[in-house]
Amino acid sequence: MNTPPSTPSRREILPRHIDLTHGSGGRATAQLIETLFLAAFDNPWLRQGNDQACLDFPEGRVVVCTDGHVISPLFFPGGDIGALAVHGTINDLAMCGAKPLYLTASFILEEGFAVADLQRIVFSMAQAARAAEVAIVAGDTKVVERGKGDGVFIATTGLGVVAPDLHISGDRAQPGDAILLSGSLGDHGIAVMAQRENLSFHAPIVSDSAPLHDLVAAMVVAVPEIHCLRDPTRGGLATTLNELAKQSRVGMVIDETAIPVKPVVRAACELLGLDPLYIANEGKLVAVCPASSAQQLLDVMRAHPLGRDAALIGEVVADAQHWVRLRTSFGGMRMVDWLASDPLPRIC
Amino acid sequence: MNTPPSTPSRREILPRHIDLTHGSGGRATAQLIETLFLAAFDNPWLRQGNDQACLDFPEGRVVVCTDGHVISPLFFPGGDIGALAVHGTINDLAMCGAKPLYLTASFILEEGFAVADLQRIVFSMAQAARAAEVAIVAGDTKVVERGKGDGVFIATTGLGVVAPDLHISGDRAQPGDAILLSGSLGDHGIAVMAQRENLSFHAPIVSDSAPLHDLVAAMVVAVPEIHCLRDPTRGGLATTLNELAKQSRVGMVIDETAIPVKPVVRAACELLGLDPLYIANEGKLVAVCPASSAQQLLDVMRAHPLGRDAALIGEVVADAQHWVRLRTSFGGMRMVDWLASDPLPRIC
Repeated sequence: MNTPPSTPSRREILPRHIDLTHGSGGRATAQLIETLFLAAFDNPWLRQGNDQACLDFPEGRVVVCTDGHVISPLFFPGGDIGALAVHGTINDLAMCGAKPLYLTASFILEEGFAVADLQRIVFSMAQAARAAEVAIVAGDTKVVERGKGDGVFIATTGLGVVAPDLHISGDRAQPGDAILLSGSLGDHGIAVMAQRENLSFHAPIVSDSAPLHDLVAAMVVAVPEIHCLRDPTRGGLATTLNELAKQSRVGMVIDETAIPVKPVVRAACELLGLDPLYIANEGKLVAVCPASSAQQLLDVMRAHPLGRDAALIGEVVADAQHWVRLRTSFGGMRMVDWLASDPLPRIC
Repeated sequence: MNTPPSTPSRREILPRHIDLTHGSGGRATAQLIETLFLAAFDNPWLRQGNDQACLDFPEGRVVVCTDGHVISPLFFPGGDIGALAVHGTINDLAMCGAKPLYLTASFILEEGFAVADLQRIVFSMAQAARAAEVAIVAGDTKVVERGKGDGVFIATTGLGVVAPDLHISGDRAQPGDAILLSGSLGDHGIAVMAQRENLSFHAPIVSDSAPLHDLVAAMVVAVPEIHCLRDPTRGGLATTLNELAKQSRVGMVIDETAIPVKPVVRAACELLGLDPLYIANEGKLVAVCPASSAQQLLDVMRAHPLGRDAALIGEVVADAQHWVRLRTSFGGMRMVDWLASDPLPRIC
């Protein structure tokens, strides 16, 4: 008889760096799960230790979304990849009016990654999930060799439930509808880029990473006839509006002067030759609603901390070409095309 | 007025290699989604073009699981990362008796990755999903710089539904229960390793990658009192049994002579100094059931193409230490510990 195996237990101390055995599925993986993930995300589903979780849903339609997160750097002013993954996933659910309930998280770690950094990220995820009353119910961890990854990638899937009578979808914009934006553009993208390039500006630029489900809940109670909601993340407002115009087979006209951009972000964009319309946001949303409800919706948005700077930025028009156009501050009109290049890669 | 934007359409031809713009969220991302992912996975949820999908579930409890896939090489005898991702996710759902219904897929691509390879993988996923009557309802694509990834990683999440009266869980094994294995060990791990190291054996070794939900459906109809099901993937049978023993607070004794291993796999293991008990499988399951139902369950398993070589391999015993022990072919007993090192990294 050999010496008895010590089953992984929480008392074991984690090593300083991730190595390939943490992805083996064996003792080291179990130890990492128990000491780090289970300790941070603790809930009945994870505690059960199965490879799947049985969930309960309140009445309504179940909604699912998924997102991979590869942001670089992992930590930035206003957030980190962990909180961003939770917020981004919650927001994708919220954009059809759903209440987020559950998340899953798949971690792809690079050999040599500092466990202290992973811990910081996992705690940040746990905190963001707890704040939004969302449980992280299933997970997975893989490890790739040094030089085959980049610290950590996190793929999250969100599950939520939406009231059966809500029908918010990107294909429901109609000519005459109002286009609202919940706040200023470009904060996230510029904050990450400044951190990456070690730039500093006269005022700090902080990511707007935030969960929008609570703002959306207030909005749909007040104006259940909202037609579309979408968060202008990668590709920025310009791409989001083009997506909605294409899906709904309409055109859009927005007013440059109505679009909120913080002076420091505008200055940074001018310095760097970037257009705030194309910069990613992680705590903003676009809403399209009947013009008759626009003022009411705007009031509700402005009454919420995450919609304080909300603005009516334009209107939906009939247009067989599905163009998005900008009325410039000089009174001219210009096309707002889809994002073609990638001015800021790995922004989320 | 500028020249009109051309909205992405399916007629556009994909480039030969992935570049960073495919992860930008702009035109190139939309084009990749339409031309490749939407074309392959085509279904009403994806066609809607929203960032989330509203799902219908038949009666029962909703089950979720998630898995990251980082296998290297991407193509191997008997499969590829795409089919493997679908099978692995289906199997995690099936291991509680659930019927798999929906998948989500998050792709992390490396700049420079050949689009033809991506296409092959995506078609393989689509085929595997269609064969299992599962819809891929939501997805995401990110691109990282050359040298920050490894071709493609795929994180999948599965959603299924389980009958309210089925309670299959890793913590339900009881002393006296029988331990069954659905077929031979080690085929997947050895096939991948042989491909990776360019080894050839006297007979071809092919991965056992397969979806087990249909086998499980037949098993639970015949023997609804199954206590545990688990697929011995990373860490192999040894680690899976240790997990179940720990969760259920029992011991296990298995018979070396009863465990099916193909002669060519056994020979390869001997040559390479590997133990088949620790090698990953992707189309096998372990079942724990009352001894009184074992023969009936074995008959049902053997009647299914994926359980032809099923065997009764051991029994659950009372053991406060939760040890797994092996009765060797020489009549001795040895400990079967958790996998400690990682003999075959990136096997799934």
